Amino acid sequence: MQTNHQWLIAARPDGLVKDSDFRWNEAPVAALEDGQVLVRSVYLSLDPTNRVWMNEADSYLPAPKLGEVMRGIGIGVVEESRHSGFAPGDLAQGLLGWQQYAVLPGPALTKLPKGLPVPTTAFFGLLGHIGLTAYFGLLDICRPKPGETLVVSTAAGAVGSLVGQIGKIKGLRVVGLTGSDEKCRWIKELGYDAAVNYKTENVREALMRHCPEGIDIYFDNVGGKILETVLDLINLGARISVCGMISMYNAGTPAPGPSNLVNLIMKRARMEGFLVTDYLPRAEDAIKEMIGWAMQGKLKYRVDVVQGLENAPRALKKLFDGSNAGKLIVQVGAE
Amino acid sequence: MQTNHQWLIAARPDGLVKDSDFRWNEAPVAALEDGQVLVRSVYLSLDPTNRVWMNEADSYLPAPKLGEVMRGIGIGVVEESRHSGFAPGDLAQGLLGWQQYAVLPGPALTKLPKGLPVPTTAFFGLLGHIGLTAYFGLLDICRPKPGETLVVSTAAGAVGSLVGQIGKIKGLRVVGLTGSDEKCRWIKELGYDAAVNYKTENVREALMRHCPEGIDIYFDNVGGKILETVLDLINLGARISVCGMISMYNAGTPAPGPSNLVNLIMKRARMEGFLVTDYLPRAEDAIKEMIGWAMQGKLKYRVDVVQGLENAPRALKKLFDGSNAGKLIVQVGAE
Repeated sequence: MQTNHQWLIAARPDGLVKDSDFRWNEAPVAALEDGQVLVRSVYLSLDPTNRVWMNEADSYLPAPKLGEVMRGIGIGVVEESRHSGFAPGDLAQGLLGWQQYAVLPGPALTKLPKGLPVPTTAFFGLLGHIGLTAYFGLLDICRPKPGETLVVSTAAGAVGSLVGQIGKIKGLRVVGLTGSDEKCRWIKELGYDAAVNYKTENVREALMRHCPEGIDIYFDNVGGKILETVLDLINLGARISVCGMISMYNAGTPAPGPSNLVNLIMKRARMEGFLVTDYLPRAEDAIKEMIGWAMQGKLKYRVDVVQGLENAPRALKKLFDGSNAGKLIVQVGAE
Repeated sequence: MQTNHQWLIAARPDGLVKDSDFRWNEAPVAALEDGQVLVRSVYLSLDPTNRVWMNEADSYLPAPKLGEVMRGIGIGVVEESRHSGFAPGDLAQGLLGWQQYAVLPGPALTKLPKGLPVPTTAFFGLLGHIGLTAYFGLLDICRPKPGETLVVSTAAGAVGSLVGQIGKIKGLRVVGLTGSDEKCRWIKELGYDAAVNYKTENVREALMRHCPEGIDIYFDNVGGKILETVLDLINLGARISVCGMISMYNAGTPAPGPSNLVNLIMKRARMEGFLVTDYLPRAEDAIKEMIGWAMQGKLKYRVDVVQGLENAPRALKKLFDGSNAGKLIVQVGAE
């Protein structure tokens, strides 16, 4: 019987995640029942939502219980199948969790095509939830018009780096906020018109300088003080796509929201939250369009792969201290 | 030469308006220039936005200077005209200000029809900015579907009392928040399914009890803590019409916003601000529909008329201490 290493949720995090919030565990791999599939995990996608899932409160998914395997999106290889849709050797994506092996019912998995001229990790990126989040969060929620000004927070992140590039494809002026000079340089290479290091610059002054005609669209991944600053600078009819509020996820007690929401009235502006899962029925067309852009060199993408399941908790912290750039992934095993 | 009594802005209010924020003044009425109209004021509309206009910061209109006449919407009778669109005896509406006489360019005034079977004050209500605010703020911003649950704050106010009734016409479950038991009784007479006295009841528990299927639509006139509570209780795909944030208007230093805006993501919800002025091109059809409802007895309306321009500052305070019910109006002179 195979041994399954896994990370369990040991405690609800108070603020930033700590090592003691996780427990390393060994368990046998359960025998398959009818309809189930055994997947050996290859890659885990680390996203800010992992932190949200650790809270006691239900989010858009029920909260996991303490002692359960940490929830996570993964890609793996089917080792054994008692479901007609999967055969050994297939590539499959789903909520595999932070573990080496997952046993899931067939319908909880998506079979991925093999032999595409892209790395497997692209299924977390352009061909997966990250690409679709950028695509629909900008195009569907904000409906940009050429010449408008778009501001993106966590602009060097997995989603943000794509949002800015899609914004340029659509003829927008694009200004990104990120946390280091290196990342500022990188997003300008991607095509951002301007980049602001929010850790060293006065964000309000920098945005006023780089957005001389005000802000029409804000793609928000952080919430908090930066949202408040942007709300002061929006134009009439502005749209704010609420993709994430990473600044709030680690708050032990909830941090206050922006004090100037009244500007939504003054500027007849709209803030709208969304989850990429709502757009899955329209995913195919979006992915085709993004692949087209990527093949024209208009859409670049960077991954940050951490080796070893044992390093997953440490890797998760990188999302919140600003030390990752591009899509954060943990490689659990060989492809 | 006629004497014009007027209220000037003497100081920027710090928190609630005080008597000393206004100065009573006498000035001569200026002689008319070409294109101008002299209007004798009959009614002034008092709205929360009057308080917003007193601030130093520009709102959706430029901030008035200290020493200027207090800005206000009024209805009056034309006494003299050097504009071809107006003749003595005409009824006209516009930003007359808090004064007995206003001299304005003709295009800044709207001529009102005479001889309708409604009181003149209805032009501030069903036939004016209040009715249109309720109509478009609910129907256009929130697009309600029969069976959904609507919560309205300042439900006994000029706008709120109409929003609830329009909600009932559209087949919604309607729950109102207001500040006295008398007002709770009144809005239930208007057709509200439930009424919550936010001063004496636990708002969260009351909303959970009265909205057993959650909140689909929130028509927000207050912002602040009640907005935060509602955000905790919204359903998937909820819409929040941001009409006013009366709880914030008097804050000397800006009060923090809701700490749970992240629920906009979890619930894929939308918050949208609007101003009725954006809907003026569609006003005629809306007013016709509302008049139809009023004639069927489905839309009732209450005015709270304070006599005498000298009482306008005192009357304005009523909007913020919850002591008015229905549309607040100051009668400046005889019809």
